[in-house]
Amino acid sequence: MLTISNRGEQMPPSPIRKLVPYAEAAKKKGIHVYHLNIGQPDIETPPALMNAVRNADLKVLEYSHSAGNESYRRKLTEYYKSVGIDVDPNQILITTGGSEAILFGFFTCLNPGDEVIIPEPFYANYNGFACAAGVEVVPITAHIDNGFALPPIEDFEKAITAKTKAIIICSPNNPTGYLYSMEEMMALKAICLKHDLYLFSDEAYREFCYDGAYVSAMHIEGLEQHVVLMDTISKRYSACGARLGAFVTKNKEVYDAAMKFAQARLSPPGLAQIMGEAAVDLPASYFDAPKAEYLSRRNLLVKRLNQMEGVFCPNPGGAFYAIARLPIDDSDLFCLWLLESFSHDNATVMLAPATGFYGTPGLGKNEVRLAYVLNLDDLSKAMDCLEAALKVYPGRTKIDLKS
Amino acid sequence: MLTISNRGEQMPPSPIRKLVPYAEAAKKKGIHVYHLNIGQPDIETPPALMNAVRNADLKVLEYSHSAGNESYRRKLTEYYKSVGIDVDPNQILITTGGSEAILFGFFTCLNPGDEVIIPEPFYANYNGFACAAGVEVVPITAHIDNGFALPPIEDFEKAITAKTKAIIICSPNNPTGYLYSMEEMMALKAICLKHDLYLFSDEAYREFCYDGAYVSAMHIEGLEQHVVLMDTISKRYSACGARLGAFVTKNKEVYDAAMKFAQARLSPPGLAQIMGEAAVDLPASYFDAPKAEYLSRRNLLVKRLNQMEGVFCPNPGGAFYAIARLPIDDSDLFCLWLLESFSHDNATVMLAPATGFYGTPGLGKNEVRLAYVLNLDDLSKAMDCLEAALKVYPGRTKIDLKS
Repeated sequence: MLTISNRGEQMPPSPIRKLVPYAEAAKKKGIHVYHLNIGQPDIETPPALMNAVRNADLKVLEYSHSAGNESYRRKLTEYYKSVGIDVDPNQILITTGGSEAILFGFFTCLNPGDEVIIPEPFYANYNGFACAAGVEVVPITAHIDNGFALPPIEDFEKAITAKTKAIIICSPNNPTGYLYSMEEMMALKAICLKHDLYLFSDEAYREFCYDGAYVSAMHIEGLEQHVVLMDTISKRYSACGARLGAFVTKNKEVYDAAMKFAQARLSPPGLAQIMGEAAVDLPASYFDAPKAEYLSRRNLLVKRLNQMEGVFCPNPGGAFYAIARLPIDDSDLFCLWLLESFSHDNATVMLAPATGFYGTPGLGKNEVRLAYVLNLDDLSKAMDCLEAALKVYPGRTKIDLKS
Repeated sequence: MLTISNRGEQMPPSPIRKLVPYAEAAKKKGIHVYHLNIGQPDIETPPALMNAVRNADLKVLEYSHSAGNESYRRKLTEYYKSVGIDVDPNQILITTGGSEAILFGFFTCLNPGDEVIIPEPFYANYNGFACAAGVEVVPITAHIDNGFALPPIEDFEKAITAKTKAIIICSPNNPTGYLYSMEEMMALKAICLKHDLYLFSDEAYREFCYDGAYVSAMHIEGLEQHVVLMDTISKRYSACGARLGAFVTKNKEVYDAAMKFAQARLSPPGLAQIMGEAAVDLPASYFDAPKAEYLSRRNLLVKRLNQMEGVFCPNPGGAFYAIARLPIDDSDLFCLWLLESFSHDNATVMLAPATGFYGTPGLGKNEVRLAYVLNLDDLSKAMDCLEAALKVYPGRTKIDLKS
């Protein structure tokens, strides 16, 4: 009998995308769906990026260098310099989205059966890449009551075994929006040095920090050999569909090994690299408008959520996500019910159940993730929907005390 | 101590790309290098493909569906129909190049430690993807003396163990150019059915068949559940840098499992999908010119090679590669020597040592792969170089009898 592989069976379906058929059914019934479930920004991709592709004079769209075009890597060093990261072109490996950078990290640094520690809730697709690479995810719980700050170092110490090889962080964080402080980064440094752990740093949301300063893992002196930066232009320039990222490390052995995986798949996308190169030439002021827009949205979202009875949402310092605690029995059921059985002014809201972002079973049952990727007007209407929904949801629990 | 993973250490470097620094050094000395080492065609990418991207009216370059845009998958079914393959859009998963389709095949159908049988010489990057997925490659030797025809079925039978899960074929073949006949495909069908093996069919060179008819694994009745077609637009439309491929199967369980790996990496490249969609609208006559061009080149190359003393090159039925047996001691040393120590009229030729395409150690030492991706004039000059080189190469062996 033909069989699927174990990893094919165990591979988790995307928790963000599994509700999509229900959203489509709602739309077919004529109900408008406000999408706060996925990190697809509505911000316009800078026209200069598409224009660079339009104006490219290419006779043959050839394979690029497996590490990405040298001209692009050279250009990217300018960008990194502008955010305080000092790297050479030969420390940058251009990838197909941040996704491929994460996969290369697992392939290069961890054996099957090895463990990676990730503060939860975390970006759900880390599970998928870990499953593909045969790596075990060991979650350490961050808590909504302190805004999802880094869990105490003792929790890391307890979780570390002989098989632990790496820690993954994402700051500003998806799904919590939490922004690690320099103090928290120094705590991570200490533990990585003490136990010889790689620090995989997913910095997809670097440009969107509202309270407090952005600290890159690459800013930390003395951790150069341990850090692999996983980066992407998806959110930075609202160009998710380009599929262009980067795997950046000063550890030459890690870089050289990752390069072999890069060679096997030949090269990253060619047209996207043209976009990426043009993006570095955008004026620094380019980020002012999207950042201000996201900040207004965050302020609206957090305010509206905390005004709802029984709802608590910590104020996220960056990115464009928030996790809120709701007075509900089960976030999976609630998110499904919003699409199947509820409407308000002929509209409803699509949220991501937080259960998909926790590695520990049972956690996140009364939490949802909201991506503030809609304009203020739509966001406000989405909040109207949520407020109305919570009043009539059959699985509403007694009102929690706000933290 | 920080360590690299075992697969990171064992991962083979690209045999095609490892000579690149020596080619660069030759060029710095002012020597012209004819590149017959890599399958990067010089054929122009059809302008209609770039124009489709130029004219796309995109405000936000969003993630596409994880399986690729539905409009593109729908369009592709028309293309597949034109080559006798009847599939639905929901049996097509758009990938980042054919490379990702191969990786998804390994992830989805094989466990770490499982075995895949591949007739050798084979596309070297299968090794890389197998290493990434923890899969063992079991080579079965095809021989230059019968033009690299499918090895006898008894050889497959001998190689099959309880761990064998799949066979990979590539027809027309890279690196040999061999085109499997219907009879050979039926032999593969029998063995796949008998032993419950998947048949991974890499058909990147489908459009370039010169002698005999193209047979797709998808043409074989009764093998629908076993076949995974791994496809790409790279060679079809000379658009290698687009990184756009497809994973096609009628096996729903395999498709659904592969889809989970696709969801983890979010989506395939967006601009490339616009190119791919436009490509399907090219007139069927589009292929006439590149095919005629490749055929002329093949004829020139094979004729010139067989005129050289001690050289044998079978006549490849498709693709744009040939493997030739040369009167040399060691193809790795010879290819290096061509770049480091030889020139003819201030030029030299870069070839790929065939050793990198064999899984069995020691094979391919007197063979090289030539990709006929240069125009006739350059190809002829490259043959002049090779002919002159063989006359003075210090590691020349006694003349073999031609087969």
